[in-house]
Amino acid sequence: MTVAEDRLDATFAALADPTRRAILARLARGDATVNELAAPFDMTLPGISKHLKVLERCGVISRSRHAQFRPCHLEGEVLDVALSWIEENRRVWKERFDKLDEHLRDLRRTPSGRREGAPDD
Amino acid sequence: MTVAEDRLDATFAALADPTRRAILARLARGDATVNELAAPFDMTLPGISKHLKVLERCGVISRSRHAQFRPCHLEGEVLDVALSWIEENRRVWKERFDKLDEHLRDLRRTPSGRREGAPDD
Repeated sequence: MTVAEDRLDATFAALADPTRRAILARLARGDATVNELAAPFDMTLPGISKHLKVLERCGVISRSRHAQFRPCHLEGEVLDVALSWIEENRRVWKERFDKLDEHLRDLRRTPSGRREGAPDD
Repeated sequence: MTVAEDRLDATFAALADPTRRAILARLARGDATVNELAAPFDMTLPGISKHLKVLERCGVISRSRHAQFRPCHLEGEVLDVALSWIEENRRVWKERFDKLDEHLRDLRRTPSGRREGAPDD
C-alpha cells in the first residue's frame, strides 16, 4: 500500500467519530488547549487525549511541544487529501450522469431515437 | 447522537479502506457486478462481498434485488454529506487564515503597527 493510501485510511478513520469531528470543527475556528477542547463534552481529559492522539497520528492536528498549555492546531491541508479524493470521484460520477441526462434529452427531441439530420436506413 | 452524525460516522468509516475506495472509484465510472468489482483485486468473492456490505449499510452503494447479476450502483449523493462536512470546516479554517494574512499585510504596510490614517496617540 502506498503512503498516500495509508494517509487516506488514517484521515477517513479519524473523521469517523463525532467527538473527533467536533474537535476539528472547534480547531477550524482557532487553536485550543486540551481543557478548552474537553469543556463541551461529557468526557474525562484522558478520553479527550485519546481522540487527540488519533488526530495527531494522522497529521490533521499538531501540538506545540514547548508551550505550557500545548495548544492544538488544525493542519487544514491534511483535510485536502480527503476532500480531493471525494471531489474527484464525485466529479467522475456526476459527469457520467450529465452525459446520460444529455443523451435522454437527445432521445426526447427525436422520438424515433435517431438524431436530427441522421440519414434514414 | 443524531442520524446525520451516524451517517457521517458510517460514511467516513466506509472510506477508510483502500479496497472500498477502489470499489467506489470503479462504480463512479459505471455500475458493475461483484465479479467485475473483484477482478482487479487479489481477493476472494466473500472478501469483496464483505466490503460491499459495509458500503451498502451506509447507503453509499445500492444493489438491484431482482437482476440476475445484482449490479452495484454508486449513490453519489451520499458522498455529498461527507464532502460537505470537510468543505465547511476547510472553509472556516481558510477564512481564519485569510484574515490573519490580511492583518499581517496591514502590519507590514504600516511598520509602527498602526493603520494608515489612524490618529497619533
